[in-house]
Amino acid sequence: MLIVQKYGGSSVADATCINRVAGRIVEMYRAGHRMVVVLSAQGDTTDDLLAKAREINPQPSKRELDMLLTTGEQQAVALMAMALHQLGAPAVSLNAVQVGIEATAQYGDARIQRIRPERIARVLEQNSIVIVAGFQGVNRYGDFTTLGRGASDTTAVALAAVLGADLCEVYTDVDGVYTADPRIVPTARKLNEISYDEMLELASMGAQVFHNRAVEMAKRHRVKLVLRSSKDFTKEGTEVKEGSTMEKLLFSGLAIDRDVARISVMGLLDRPGIAFHIFSLLATQQISVDIILQTAGAADGDAPGQAMDISFTVSRADLDATLNTLAANQQAIGFQSITHDITLAKLSIIGAGMATNAGVASAMFEALYECAVNINLISTSEIKITVLVDAEKVDTAARAIHDKFAKLMEE
Amino acid sequence: MLIVQKYGGSSVADATCINRVAGRIVEMYRAGHRMVVVLSAQGDTTDDLLAKAREINPQPSKRELDMLLTTGEQQAVALMAMALHQLGAPAVSLNAVQVGIEATAQYGDARIQRIRPERIARVLEQNSIVIVAGFQGVNRYGDFTTLGRGASDTTAVALAAVLGADLCEVYTDVDGVYTADPRIVPTARKLNEISYDEMLELASMGAQVFHNRAVEMAKRHRVKLVLRSSKDFTKEGTEVKEGSTMEKLLFSGLAIDRDVARISVMGLLDRPGIAFHIFSLLATQQISVDIILQTAGAADGDAPGQAMDISFTVSRADLDATLNTLAANQQAIGFQSITHDITLAKLSIIGAGMATNAGVASAMFEALYECAVNINLISTSEIKITVLVDAEKVDTAARAIHDKFAKLMEE
Repeated sequence: MLIVQKYGGSSVADATCINRVAGRIVEMYRAGHRMVVVLSAQGDTTDDLLAKAREINPQPSKRELDMLLTTGEQQAVALMAMALHQLGAPAVSLNAVQVGIEATAQYGDARIQRIRPERIARVLEQNSIVIVAGFQGVNRYGDFTTLGRGASDTTAVALAAVLGADLCEVYTDVDGVYTADPRIVPTARKLNEISYDEMLELASMGAQVFHNRAVEMAKRHRVKLVLRSSKDFTKEGTEVKEGSTMEKLLFSGLAIDRDVARISVMGLLDRPGIAFHIFSLLATQQISVDIILQTAGAADGDAPGQAMDISFTVSRADLDATLNTLAANQQAIGFQSITHDITLAKLSIIGAGMATNAGVASAMFEALYECAVNINLISTSEIKITVLVDAEKVDTAARAIHDKFAKLMEE
Repeated sequence: MLIVQKYGGSSVADATCINRVAGRIVEMYRAGHRMVVVLSAQGDTTDDLLAKAREINPQPSKRELDMLLTTGEQQAVALMAMALHQLGAPAVSLNAVQVGIEATAQYGDARIQRIRPERIARVLEQNSIVIVAGFQGVNRYGDFTTLGRGASDTTAVALAAVLGADLCEVYTDVDGVYTADPRIVPTARKLNEISYDEMLELASMGAQVFHNRAVEMAKRHRVKLVLRSSKDFTKEGTEVKEGSTMEKLLFSGLAIDRDVARISVMGLLDRPGIAFHIFSLLATQQISVDIILQTAGAADGDAPGQAMDISFTVSRADLDATLNTLAANQQAIGFQSITHDITLAKLSIIGAGMATNAGVASAMFEALYECAVNINLISTSEIKITVLVDAEKVDTAARAIHDKFAKLMEE
């Protein structure tokens, strides 16, 4: 088999970790597999380099920051190749320029556009293991760009897609995808498999197991993706694949996201394009809006021209920028007031058939009612139901909902 | 003017050092000069990376080592660009791949073959400062190679040659070239200028002010080279240029090299090609031989076919390899015995007209006689006289010779 593996920063943090991972790679190589391995920078390297940069320039140029940060992965792959040599296995390390991972010019948050498979194919033909620096690309100017935090997952999936790999294994601190965070919900259990879509919802809801773009790419290119433990190689992990049982209700998991600020813009004149006006203004400031709820305001009736409110959530880091942008455009948008709330958290349940199975939402609301947690806002999609609740009560709510659904699944 | 500057690792060791150097660069940039700056890796970065590599693999592959080590310079140039931005100056950092510093494939000790000037020229046209990673090249496989320890000097001179720079300034811990090491010879004085050839002799004799290949390249391409202090930018330094006063005796300096092992191969049959045989054997083992002295042996007469001895010096690190190589080939070479001596040091005086000015050698020998230092071996060239003396007495000898020549120069 042609296998692409990805190991994160903590898996290669020091010589001991590197040797452990090298042992795993060599074992699979000697079992007859062709191996392509993607690495992140060692341990805290990226943060240390960021700190060094900010000491010199509090707002370093993104081009230069990418030039600096990409050295972290390059060091990791060179050291891993040395460790493999020490175990008697042939290995060649490659950075993004050498592989030919062509990416957009957007420093700090580039997207992979094309991967040239030639050099990797040549090294594989020589029966050698290929070690690739994750997280980085090269743009049309020949400059390094980085693909965003955690994007080594994306590098691995993209390579698996281009090379037609039989399997893409992503090794992390956890041994798979759980129905909820086990630290919060003790009854959470590991899933043997999950669909791409459910995984996407879980990841975007704050369950930081996979990089979201990696899952999207795996879905698009039908890459067989397995999340495994880097601490215990004997554990089987969770396979992410095409969902096949959309008819049946599947409770795949529950996720909590505490990084939420709710903003309400009130007393808007209800005219066409008003929501577009607000969100395009925020988009120009690079502010991502999550849940959006549009409601009739205090005015009676629903004829155009009457007052209404729009509520939405943003990440807390974007709160000030959001409030300032809206305030600066109060006249142009035309609203009466803004309120915001940072005492809330987002709780989502994810599973195939959420929207089409009657009783799912009511079971969730029943669980919340039973533990006396008020719902501030509700949003639903094909495979997800999200509520905003008091952040202080979100753990209690999570346990109550998880238990209710675990019971429902058994029935 | 187009100025190429090079700053060593200690000049960019931390944020404070980087900001100091950035200040100097911006000052010259604002004075209207076009600036190309070559940097080494920060402080002990290269040694730290080497230690990391050896922890994982005591004999790391040279390709992977170059992949690892080149990250040090890349980090330094990115940080310097950030520091320049902070001072409001435009700057772009480039590594060897981006510049197009094409080098031989010999990892760890590659030679620059060609530098593509296009990208640097483009950045300079945009009125920006260019910061280039020293010490590195890219070979025909697209892999990083390093140019040998201290080779950032070479990068700077090569860039100055290709770009037709008006001046190449190399900043180091010392403020210029001295007639001797001031720590050993207190009366040593700084030279305002020195010829390429004298500089070459001084550098190869252990006065580690410039990287020797950098001086050779400067000579070949007539690059105006100035050695300056990175600690005090107001000091003028030493200019290295074409020698112009070969007629007159010039005492340019005195150098001591303690890394010497003397080997004597005795009882050789004096037949054509015997010296070539020995030294080509050593060359295949990458052993550099320095002084060579061929003498008639104990046998009488000088007819071919009679016994003779060959003595030569190598660096102490190569002593074991040299003895082993010779011993393994005793039959093929045909000699009776080998002796070696590691209690010696090499002392050289360098200056234009050494060979053609009567009395220079005798003045040197007189000084040695006056301080009771025996001469073990003598070697002379156009601009240099070298003696091997007892290592324990070499400092005393250096002071005596320096004083004698300083007096001669005044006369």
